[in-house]
Amino acid sequence: MQYKYLLDEKDMPTHWYNILTDMKKKPPFYRHPATLEELAPPGPPMPPPVFPMALIEQEFSPERYIEIPDEVADVLKMWRPSPVYRAARWEKALDTPAKIYYKWEGVSPPGSHKPNTAVAQAYYAKAEGLEGVATETGAGQWGSALSFATNYFGLKCKIFMVAISFQQKPYRRIAMETWGGSVVPSPSSETNAGRAVLEQDPESPGSLGIAISEALEYAVTHDGYKYSLGSVVNFVLLHQTVIGQEAMKQMEMAGDYPDIVIGCAGGGSNAAGLIFPFMKDKLTGAKPNLRAIFVESTACPSMTRGVYAYDWGDTAKTGPVAKMHTVGHSFIPAPVHAGGLRYHGMAPSICALLDQGQAESRAYHQNEVLSSAVGFARAEGFIVAPETAHAVKAVMDEALACKESGESKVILFNASGHGHFDLAAYDAYFRQDLPDYQLDESRIEVALTELPKIPA
Amino acid sequence: MQYKYLLDEKDMPTHWYNILTDMKKKPPFYRHPATLEELAPPGPPMPPPVFPMALIEQEFSPERYIEIPDEVADVLKMWRPSPVYRAARWEKALDTPAKIYYKWEGVSPPGSHKPNTAVAQAYYAKAEGLEGVATETGAGQWGSALSFATNYFGLKCKIFMVAISFQQKPYRRIAMETWGGSVVPSPSSETNAGRAVLEQDPESPGSLGIAISEALEYAVTHDGYKYSLGSVVNFVLLHQTVIGQEAMKQMEMAGDYPDIVIGCAGGGSNAAGLIFPFMKDKLTGAKPNLRAIFVESTACPSMTRGVYAYDWGDTAKTGPVAKMHTVGHSFIPAPVHAGGLRYHGMAPSICALLDQGQAESRAYHQNEVLSSAVGFARAEGFIVAPETAHAVKAVMDEALACKESGESKVILFNASGHGHFDLAAYDAYFRQDLPDYQLDESRIEVALTELPKIPA
Repeated sequence: MQYKYLLDEKDMPTHWYNILTDMKKKPPFYRHPATLEELAPPGPPMPPPVFPMALIEQEFSPERYIEIPDEVADVLKMWRPSPVYRAARWEKALDTPAKIYYKWEGVSPPGSHKPNTAVAQAYYAKAEGLEGVATETGAGQWGSALSFATNYFGLKCKIFMVAISFQQKPYRRIAMETWGGSVVPSPSSETNAGRAVLEQDPESPGSLGIAISEALEYAVTHDGYKYSLGSVVNFVLLHQTVIGQEAMKQMEMAGDYPDIVIGCAGGGSNAAGLIFPFMKDKLTGAKPNLRAIFVESTACPSMTRGVYAYDWGDTAKTGPVAKMHTVGHSFIPAPVHAGGLRYHGMAPSICALLDQGQAESRAYHQNEVLSSAVGFARAEGFIVAPETAHAVKAVMDEALACKESGESKVILFNASGHGHFDLAAYDAYFRQDLPDYQLDESRIEVALTELPKIPA
Repeated sequence: MQYKYLLDEKDMPTHWYNILTDMKKKPPFYRHPATLEELAPPGPPMPPPVFPMALIEQEFSPERYIEIPDEVADVLKMWRPSPVYRAARWEKALDTPAKIYYKWEGVSPPGSHKPNTAVAQAYYAKAEGLEGVATETGAGQWGSALSFATNYFGLKCKIFMVAISFQQKPYRRIAMETWGGSVVPSPSSETNAGRAVLEQDPESPGSLGIAISEALEYAVTHDGYKYSLGSVVNFVLLHQTVIGQEAMKQMEMAGDYPDIVIGCAGGGSNAAGLIFPFMKDKLTGAKPNLRAIFVESTACPSMTRGVYAYDWGDTAKTGPVAKMHTVGHSFIPAPVHAGGLRYHGMAPSICALLDQGQAESRAYHQNEVLSSAVGFARAEGFIVAPETAHAVKAVMDEALACKESGESKVILFNASGHGHFDLAAYDAYFRQDLPDYQLDESRIEVALTELPKIPA
């Protein structure tokens, strides 16, 4: 039995794949956060121009394939290509005729898929002559990746980490510092946004919304700094397509092509990274029956309970407005362990695919998710992140459906990261102390009343 | 630039390498813990016969190569062969002409080299018809590996975890439970040994010595159970030789042969695993100039400050007496973060090589060790365990010596595990709160007075 399908460094993809070029109906342009006017290129693309220009160009690129700079590829090669595993032991444990494969992104030094875009963003920031980048992080996956990446390009990295996570999850903070990043708890006294919150509540636990506002303000008010973002926008998903391109080669080595591709989705970047290169085969007609499933948390069900509408990307309404599945920018999700799935919106490109019937979505509670992750760990060895565990649960359900129907479908999912810093979630599950938060639908209704009123 | 040298599963070693067969002078036989009589085969090999018989046979095997059972290889293939990395970025950071390579054992699900032997031990326990195995663990690396391994053979796994670690390092405990192991804080009320300690001190923080005594007692007093050990003895080091055998193939792919091979050594298993297959070339005359360096902590300097003498392997004097470098079984090392390097003795086979001038040893303080590990993390990305960081420091010193001399030596070391559960060590280093314990030599002197008096 062969378990791992490995590629050499020379087999790493040379280009990123831009799915927008293959979509019959593209997501609409962003809109100005204040005026709500459409921001169609070549006009000012994103107010304020918080990202390096090369990234803004990628956001709107008409090219199907965009070359990966050598300097970026050279850093990615530290852990890429990542392995594809055949989950033979898990198949046996599930007693399913399905064939399950997973792409294992936990091998990167920061432990997730996030550095795939962090490295690219650091490179373009450096190429533009910047001194540093600023960002926010919740539980710390994204901050870790950016701290790791900026280190290789001699850039400073300023990370606003949600205060409660800063206190409760010191390991991620230490990892960021080990790679050289500068981490402050948010709200901080370093920005107007932070000081305003602290004046009201000196003990504020912070939130991702506040941290975004602080990072944006820091980037805009510090010469030589720009902002960096870990998901949602096109260029981030673009950078993640190395995952799926590698996986296509590895599935070829395994002699299989997936019937179903699955990923967990908070902003959507890891799932899109795996799924988009396969989705090309569906959009271009080569694989019309391919199923793509994006999996979210019931605590923040943008795809399964939200609306497909324009909304601000951030709580403070400073970033652009995008058309996406959203539960409303003011919706505050329950504190599930899968912090990466607590974003109110979803990547516009994924939402367009959902809207066009090219992809599916579903949501799970955290106990069923952790239960399947424990089964996965006992079969495959790897302890995955709580976010990734959502994909694991969806795979399990599909595999059990195969058992029911007797079909031997091929299922591929993205094991987007390890859970070494999230073991408290497993512990709570074992102790039967993991709440399955019941969604109060009226809170979504209220949040949806605050969506922007787009002029006709 | 190629960074990683990967092997396919089919290139995994088919046999373990038994270095004893190539040693001109072998380590002397073990002695009975009470009578101190020599335990020469075919007499009773180890009192009490706490290990499965197949392992006891391996301990004294006259065979140079011992076949790896298919069932063991099948589990090892979940992560093996592990990659060899060229540390090109670290070479550049150190500005050294040396060429540095490292074997990365952090890719195993438990995160270290330990499962290489845990899987084999679980297999032989199952083959003997056992129901379970018992063991002790300090910080938890070994317990994690055994919990992971026994799960694949349907065995129960009872782990006595030093109480203070059980409380302070919950993540490793949760990982063990995730793989299905049963973990109790030691001293526990489940054994006479544990109860005796608790009667004296209900708040006892425990020690590795107590935990060993509890695990041994549990194994001996429970039908269907035997004991499992993670280092020191021949069969454990034997199982680790897959590391070095793979590395030899990978160095060949890289077109290099090491001038120096380096590993950190507590009981010695990871270092031996890398070094022994290369040492064969030295012992048989093919590579007479190869240097092998075993690196320990100044807090427990068995090789650099101890004596080469007979001593008990455990504090409770229930296991066999072995001739080894030791600071005395009653010596209690300072609480350095590298818990895996706090063993009073050293593998007898390594000690014989040291005694015969075939290998070198050195010791480091934890601040210099963590400093080099931070440099390594910033260059190579991976955050290594505090134990592994001792090898990193030795490599750095050798690389800087090359810079001094202008020599372009090839250095290979074993990156034995990741430090994801040990980030407190890095944090303490950054906060300048990491003590460099000064060794009180008189404490070694006292401990050495308690060595067994071997009859002439």
